[in-house]
Amino acid sequence: MLDTLRQHIETSLQTIPYPEAPANLYEPIRYILSLGGKRIRPVLALIGCGLFDEQWEKATPAALAIELFHNFTLMHDDIMDKAPLRRSKPTVHQRWNENVAILSGDAMLVKAYEQLVQTPTTELAHLLSLFNTCALQVCEGQQYDMDFEQRAAVSRQEYLKMIRLKTAVLLGFSLRAGALVGGAGLAEQQGLYELGVNMGMAFQLQDDLLDVYAEEAFGKRIGGDIVANKKTLLLIEAMERADESQQKQLFFWLNTENFDPNEKVNTVKEIYDAIGVRLIVEEQIRRYHHKAEKALNTLRAHCRPTFVSALEQLLQNLLIRKV
Amino acid sequence: MLDTLRQHIETSLQTIPYPEAPANLYEPIRYILSLGGKRIRPVLALIGCGLFDEQWEKATPAALAIELFHNFTLMHDDIMDKAPLRRSKPTVHQRWNENVAILSGDAMLVKAYEQLVQTPTTELAHLLSLFNTCALQVCEGQQYDMDFEQRAAVSRQEYLKMIRLKTAVLLGFSLRAGALVGGAGLAEQQGLYELGVNMGMAFQLQDDLLDVYAEEAFGKRIGGDIVANKKTLLLIEAMERADESQQKQLFFWLNTENFDPNEKVNTVKEIYDAIGVRLIVEEQIRRYHHKAEKALNTLRAHCRPTFVSALEQLLQNLLIRKV
Repeated sequence: MLDTLRQHIETSLQTIPYPEAPANLYEPIRYILSLGGKRIRPVLALIGCGLFDEQWEKATPAALAIELFHNFTLMHDDIMDKAPLRRSKPTVHQRWNENVAILSGDAMLVKAYEQLVQTPTTELAHLLSLFNTCALQVCEGQQYDMDFEQRAAVSRQEYLKMIRLKTAVLLGFSLRAGALVGGAGLAEQQGLYELGVNMGMAFQLQDDLLDVYAEEAFGKRIGGDIVANKKTLLLIEAMERADESQQKQLFFWLNTENFDPNEKVNTVKEIYDAIGVRLIVEEQIRRYHHKAEKALNTLRAHCRPTFVSALEQLLQNLLIRKV
Repeated sequence: MLDTLRQHIETSLQTIPYPEAPANLYEPIRYILSLGGKRIRPVLALIGCGLFDEQWEKATPAALAIELFHNFTLMHDDIMDKAPLRRSKPTVHQRWNENVAILSGDAMLVKAYEQLVQTPTTELAHLLSLFNTCALQVCEGQQYDMDFEQRAAVSRQEYLKMIRLKTAVLLGFSLRAGALVGGAGLAEQQGLYELGVNMGMAFQLQDDLLDVYAEEAFGKRIGGDIVANKKTLLLIEAMERADESQQKQLFFWLNTENFDPNEKVNTVKEIYDAIGVRLIVEEQIRRYHHKAEKALNTLRAHCRPTFVSALEQLLQNLLIRKV
């Protein structure tokens, strides 16, 4: 089922129309969408709909809107992060230039709304309001993320709030938007939203772990977060538990401007291992995962089983991403 | 009446809610909106509504959406143009930084949709589709504008198409959106759209003239377009009519990287004067203005007179902006 849904997204993404000109505006949109990805968010939208309505294709415009929106945020975040690569390919601002990436991103956000407006629902205003709220939260999350880079310390609570805004709420919205299109009631929509948010929290924390412990880096350098002094939960937990000598070392690496990246990554990783932060973060992931699973179990009674299974499988896949 | 409408916009802009945090996301939105401006577009939206419905305030959310959208484009365009000032005040990317200007602009575009969704109309999907089309056209116009900077020559037709997209269609949309909210029929909406587009063309060409011939520059350096080699209609008409020696001089100034800005502006201006391009562009402005007036006259029979007069006055004000 998941493959069918993913394939449906891929095919549908191809059908979004773009004018031929100006090429510098529309070509980058096609480019970033062609870089692939797991399409988790739009698949969640289709699942949200399929849980309640056998015509899960109804959620296609909303699903495409979400994927367009997500890729718009990637295009602009890559400028802000000065990222040269995305999925081992040059980022848009790298392949074209920053102005092109700014403006194409803007157009992509409008294209997202263009899709959303095509959603077959009597609750369009409601759907749009939910989307707007979510979109602003994602912007807030990105702003906090940038603000945190300038700060010496970030609390666990602040970090969790940031990733909730930047990553998790969009997964919650995806499930909820699909459910809304599928005719779910308000309580069901809210339940799915919470499920998606918990899934998103687990997803992002898993991503943080992968950055440090992945065996293969797919277009991403291992330890990128460490090199960039990102205040991930790993670092926050490590700082809190470090003894005096470990704390000194962490401070040293956080405040040294000229360094050998490999040396920095290896030393920080050794401290992480000595403290055992991996287990602590894994425990946190399991907790979010468990919450999502519990919510999922309440769906079994009144939702369509094929789609409950699909959601279950997607949730499992998250945890077995290669660490 | 125009003052009432403008005042209503100023007051309503103050009521748009923004969260307190993150400050770097929302403060720049308040800042750019506080820089003022003539609020022509939102006033046009209120007029469009008032032409058909005595409750012209109904168009307030749409009007605010348009002003938010317009200022979002200014915030991002200023990054792309590396503009240090807007209305004699530092631009957002100058006062904060580029990342803040990118992300605040993004949030501002979402805030525009947030307003638009609050429009009291049964035709929300239609209104949103029109807005999306217009927003993409504005992006296209900005992209063409940037593309033209890299090109040696631009035709009159290409230039007019560019300013139609970048500037004129938003004025057309503003009038039309108001009319839609006010209950106007499709034909009336389209008539008002054309009126607004013609008004926008006259407006932009007048702006091009002001750049060269304004006696006072309000926060803008006189001749900025000349210094930046902008292919305005003035330059295009001058190139076409220049004799061999004038053409040589124009080419020289277009292709010289190190120059004294005053000398460049003065020399190019002398060529413009010798050829008489000011009169040619003024004639073009009059033609667009005349088209707008003709459309306006057809409204008299069935539209509310106070608002016909308000529109008439706004149109007149355009032509008597100080050159």
